[in-house]
Amino acid sequence: MNENTELKLTAAEVEAVIKGGLPSATQGGFHVEEVRQGYARIRLPYSPWMLRPGNLVSGPALFTAADAAMYALVMAHIGPVVMSVTANMNLHFLSAAPTGDIVAEAKLLRLGLRLAVMEVSLFTGAEKSFVAHVTGTYALPRRR
Amino acid sequence: MNENTELKLTAAEVEAVIKGGLPSATQGGFHVEEVRQGYARIRLPYSPWMLRPGNLVSGPALFTAADAAMYALVMAHIGPVVMSVTANMNLHFLSAAPTGDIVAEAKLLRLGLRLAVMEVSLFTGAEKSFVAHVTGTYALPRRR
Amino acid sequence: MNENTELKLTAAEVEAVIKGGLPSATQGGFHVEEVRQGYARIRLPYSPWMLRPGNLVSGPALFTAADAAMYALVMAHIGPVVMSVTANMNLHFLSAAPTGDIVAEAKLLRLGLRLAVMEVSLFTGAEKSFVAHVTGTYALPRRR
Amino acid sequence: MNENTELKLTAAEVEAVIKGGLPSATQGGFHVEEVRQGYARIRLPYSPWMLRPGNLVSGPALFTAADAAMYALVMAHIGPVVMSVTANMNLHFLSAAPTGDIVAEAKLLRLGLRLAVMEVSLFTGAEKSFVAHVTGTYALPRRR
Repeated sequence: MNENTELKLTAAEVEAVIKGGLPSATQGGFHVEEVRQGYARIRLPYSPWMLRPGNLVSGPALFTAADAAMYALVMAHIGPVVMSVTANMNLHFLSAAPTGDIVAEAKLLRLGLRLAVMEVSLFTGAEKSFVAHVTGTYALPRRR
Repeated sequence: MNENTELKLTAAEVEAVIKGGLPSATQGGFHVEEVRQGYARIRLPYSPWMLRPGNLVSGPALFTAADAAMYALVMAHIGPVVMSVTANMNLHFLSAAPTGDIVAEAKLLRLGLRLAVMEVSLFTGAEKSFVAHVTGTYALPRRR
Repeated sequence: MNENTELKLTAAEVEAVIKGGLPSATQGGFHVEEVRQGYARIRLPYSPWMLRPGNLVSGPALFTAADAAMYALVMAHIGPVVMSVTANMNLHFLSAAPTGDIVAEAKLLRLGLRLAVMEVSLFTGAEKSFVAHVTGTYALPRRR
Repeated sequence: MNENTELKLTAAEVEAVIKGGLPSATQGGFHVEEVRQGYARIRLPYSPWMLRPGNLVSGPALFTAADAAMYALVMAHIGPVVMSVTANMNLHFLSAAPTGDIVAEAKLLRLGLRLAVMEVSLFTGAEKSFVAHVTGTYALPRRR
């Protein structure tokens, strides 16, 4: 499923790099919970900016978590390159998202030389409801 | 391309409804610039939360603008129903997004009884660079 | 992940219904290998129409298999309704697809009253290479 | 919207290259009707393999036309490179597709060095019904 056999960064290292790039409202408790071969899981703690009418977590908040999880997954595998950019994201919203922390689990579908393709499952609220499924592509910088 | 021949709300009415649902950081200058048959254009004024490293507008900010434009477009055509929900969104990021206001132009591809399908073009910065293209589906409430 | 606790059709019943709807070139050995709660797996035997230059399985052939797998999954769960229609499909092509049978594994992400959201993994060739990942939405007929 | 100012191939040249790569059932009347800066239009003549129950054009047939139109568009702009590959495609099916020729209009959203992003509108039948909207990404070979 991917060509690397070693991770380039630990969860703590990934967390430090990503934190600087998140909107300030989000940096507070942002946490990279786990990275391993082909997998990364992050937590975006609940914050009032995430709220949408109906006492739900908004689409932009879910997008933010999915994007951070994909970035964490790529960075753990290829190192702290700044030049990786999201080429596309496809989001399916599955059910109303109860307020609470967002947990995002990202898995590699393919890590090539030029593109990384990933899927992300998003969970929110006290019961970790499965609220959205995301796939996306990162364009990778040239590596040796 | 759609079954309605009259809009249900003016740009000002749409703006008032959406403003309440946006993250507070965004409500400031949010503006529905135009709605007409099959079309809506909104402006999300630049705000520091949108910034990402490299002096660029972030993905979550672009998502927010696309989502607001789709919501404005649907609402102008079917009225201020609260129950419309985004079923999916597909985003292609085309080029680095220079900082500045985000302008989002949404067009109806299909307005059915149960689903509305739309495309959105996103522009940022002083030169209105074309930075992202989005398609998405809204699940519509039952209407009579 | 879905609201039903019983399947409505067996693999053999699903196969019989789908076979009639496939292009004739494909009907030959089409096989629904397994259906269970939230899951369906089909096999589309290799046939010359699938070939593309480079001795590879073509995109249209992969699309056909993904669509048939989604249809099998939906039908097993809601019965042989003819009115289900594909609303959207998003395909990520992961690697060159070696010629051979196509196996498609479909999983339910969400079975609601009006929409079913699924993901499909596609494998081809003697070594069952993972060649494409697909998500899609079906609009469901009104049920009681 | 793209970096090239000259097309590399004419419509007739593009047609000749693509024809060899299509399934044999489709090669008959396949026609590249027009290519110009940022635009290509192809026609896939109706053929029995396209039929699905309900006297409609099938999803796989629509996919085939969209893929051929994207390939024609890319090839007209960068030349007859064989190494371009579809990285992803996102299809929205808008309405039942009446039988008849499929016309696919493809437009460049972005032609970069490594990726081309395009949108395709699909029309079928005697009244050229707008039946599907597609976006997609091609990974391009290294050029000088």
